Amino acid sequence: MSKMKGNMLIGQSGGPTVVINQSLVGAIVEAKKHAAIRGIYGARHGMKGILEEAFVDLRKESKATLEAVAQTPASALGSARKKPTDEECARVFDILRRYDIRYFFYIGGNDSAESASIIADNARKVGYEMACFHIPKTIDNDLRENDHTPGYGSAARFVACASIGDNLDSRALPGVKINVIMGRHAGFLTAAAALARVYPDDGPHLIYLPERPFSMDQFISDVERVHAKLGRCVVAVSEGIADADGAAIAAKFTKETDSHGNVQLSGTGALGDLLANQIRSRTKISRVRADTFGYLQRSFPGMPSPVDAREARAVGVRAVQEAVRSGGSGSIAIRRKPGKTYSVLLEPVPLHSVAKETRHMPDEFIHPDGNDVTEAFLAYARPLAGPLPKIGRLKGVPVRSAK
Amino acid sequence: MSKMKGNMLIGQSGGPTVVINQSLVGAIVEAKKHAAIRGIYGARHGMKGILEEAFVDLRKESKATLEAVAQTPASALGSARKKPTDEECARVFDILRRYDIRYFFYIGGNDSAESASIIADNARKVGYEMACFHIPKTIDNDLRENDHTPGYGSAARFVACASIGDNLDSRALPGVKINVIMGRHAGFLTAAAALARVYPDDGPHLIYLPERPFSMDQFISDVERVHAKLGRCVVAVSEGIADADGAAIAAKFTKETDSHGNVQLSGTGALGDLLANQIRSRTKISRVRADTFGYLQRSFPGMPSPVDAREARAVGVRAVQEAVRSGGSGSIAIRRKPGKTYSVLLEPVPLHSVAKETRHMPDEFIHPDGNDVTEAFLAYARPLAGPLPKIGRLKGVPVRSAK
Repeated sequence: MSKMKGNMLIGQSGGPTVVINQSLVGAIVEAKKHAAIRGIYGARHGMKGILEEAFVDLRKESKATLEAVAQTPASALGSARKKPTDEECARVFDILRRYDIRYFFYIGGNDSAESASIIADNARKVGYEMACFHIPKTIDNDLRENDHTPGYGSAARFVACASIGDNLDSRALPGVKINVIMGRHAGFLTAAAALARVYPDDGPHLIYLPERPFSMDQFISDVERVHAKLGRCVVAVSEGIADADGAAIAAKFTKETDSHGNVQLSGTGALGDLLANQIRSRTKISRVRADTFGYLQRSFPGMPSPVDAREARAVGVRAVQEAVRSGGSGSIAIRRKPGKTYSVLLEPVPLHSVAKETRHMPDEFIHPDGNDVTEAFLAYARPLAGPLPKIGRLKGVPVRSAK
Repeated sequence: MSKMKGNMLIGQSGGPTVVINQSLVGAIVEAKKHAAIRGIYGARHGMKGILEEAFVDLRKESKATLEAVAQTPASALGSARKKPTDEECARVFDILRRYDIRYFFYIGGNDSAESASIIADNARKVGYEMACFHIPKTIDNDLRENDHTPGYGSAARFVACASIGDNLDSRALPGVKINVIMGRHAGFLTAAAALARVYPDDGPHLIYLPERPFSMDQFISDVERVHAKLGRCVVAVSEGIADADGAAIAAKFTKETDSHGNVQLSGTGALGDLLANQIRSRTKISRVRADTFGYLQRSFPGMPSPVDAREARAVGVRAVQEAVRSGGSGSIAIRRKPGKTYSVLLEPVPLHSVAKETRHMPDEFIHPDGNDVTEAFLAYARPLAGPLPKIGRLKGVPVRSAK
């Protein structure tokens, strides 16, 4: 057990999820149990709030408020997409020192792990004693070291439910339906659309992931083939699909980037409309629609995956325990235990092992044709998304023709 | 009680909803109780299935299947957007006669009521004795005679939940967020976004409805004003917004129409992207995003409004009862009883009173400024959408500045 005593600061960073506040509340509730932690402060809007010293006193929040916040989607402290510069890092230490912050927690994805890593490195460099933990979160499910990440299961659940409904809608009013799903470099969330399938003819019938080069010609011919067979075609496509040269198809339509150099792919319907227009102009199929699931995937309230909510809480708790125990730095990784029944264990891992670089869908999750997922992916994702709404279908015995 | 005996045919038409199968199953289960009704047939894809004699025997469906279908979104029999021509109407009678259809039910919106009305008129004209009932359904909530329509409550619930999540997401990562919501001529569904508000600064901060002329200049200045005050702005805008001359803003981007002459407004992100680009190019606000809620609004499974599901079932039951009782034609309208506690009564009304023409938001539901709804609307819509997920918010007591 580390002897280090002082205040704790926690921040949230990157895109929100519906369970990121479970991690926040898990960390706060655990922190209250440790005498080494005195003040429990929250930074408003991540790195931005640290630089502006916009801190709130989380010991002043009631138990009831904390539990209500835990159930509430989107970063309760506010978020930011900000990578600190060298000059800002110097200022961060001046601030952390002044506030006697000895326990620092940053909830986020790989960019946030990178920010935490920069802070931990700088703390070591200037000889400032501080525990610095990254708490994993991302609907993209693209953090290295992790079997999966908090936030993914609930987003996968939303995408699966949306795809169940959309497949039924397409059965009722057939045509081609294209659904654009979040995921910059990793196709895990788009792949989750496949969880919607119950009957052999259920959509999505085609799934395009960033892990495979996207060919417009192949796409058109895939859609024509499915439509000829079923009279309809539901497509799930990642916002991050890129051509054989690695150029994002959607990037042709935007120039906006954040300070991590990421192009804006979400918050626009341009990719879906582009793909729909290609089908309209290059095939004889008349009814073509595109939806972009958008921010609902990471913020829709009231239906988190139970497993995801539980694990998001647990990584927050565990990060605080590890910080107090070791006084060092790291991230908490989720590992799946082998065996038929789903269970996980949480493990501390070095910060640099999850920072910056992302993880992609493994080959065994992607159909050899590059336009679908495999049974192995479905087995992987099912327990994460949790039980889905039951769907009924008429047997549909034809009435004998009347002369 | 009518003495008429024969077979029953039921079809579903227009855009699906998450409770339209409640009406279908309500009608089937009720029909089984009446000796006057012999065969219970379902037409596949509405008018299309009638003309193709694509009928299924609904007496062959088990109770368990029917109840599972009742819980399942989107028209289980399949739908169509098809207005029968005069020539087709002649063929329809040949077919109805051959199948000895004496009870005809058509579940749908105002276009479907028009189709039912044409069929009833033609039956009268040729002296074919047949009960012909329209069963109301539309997420647009724009049927005349009705306080509200089955399908609206559940769609409003989805829009309200989506708006709760989106407001939280916008608090976490501020900017301008534009959400495009379904509703061709009536703003009821877009207005339901206002149900998301819990705290005074909650979005949506601006709501634009088809009932008021949309001015791009006014929109820009509204958004700038809210953004200057709150540092963010969430906008709910109907896909059907039109300029002062009545030209739909979204119609500039599509030429596709159905046989009722309706322009395609859904299934594209063009309107949201247009509005976002206007904000980007004409203001100094940098982070601007647009989502189009799309088909999820009418198909998302697992979270129907309980009131809506119950009423959708009830109008199906009542239509069959009225048809058997009177042997005539009509629709079933939902009236709200006056009083503090929400309750309704169902009333048969003439087909022509709901056919074709649509209902709009009454003036008392629209804010005088034309960019919001009123308390009266919220009181009207709240019981229809049902209880929404509870939201928590940190008190956020600032930490005293450290020197």
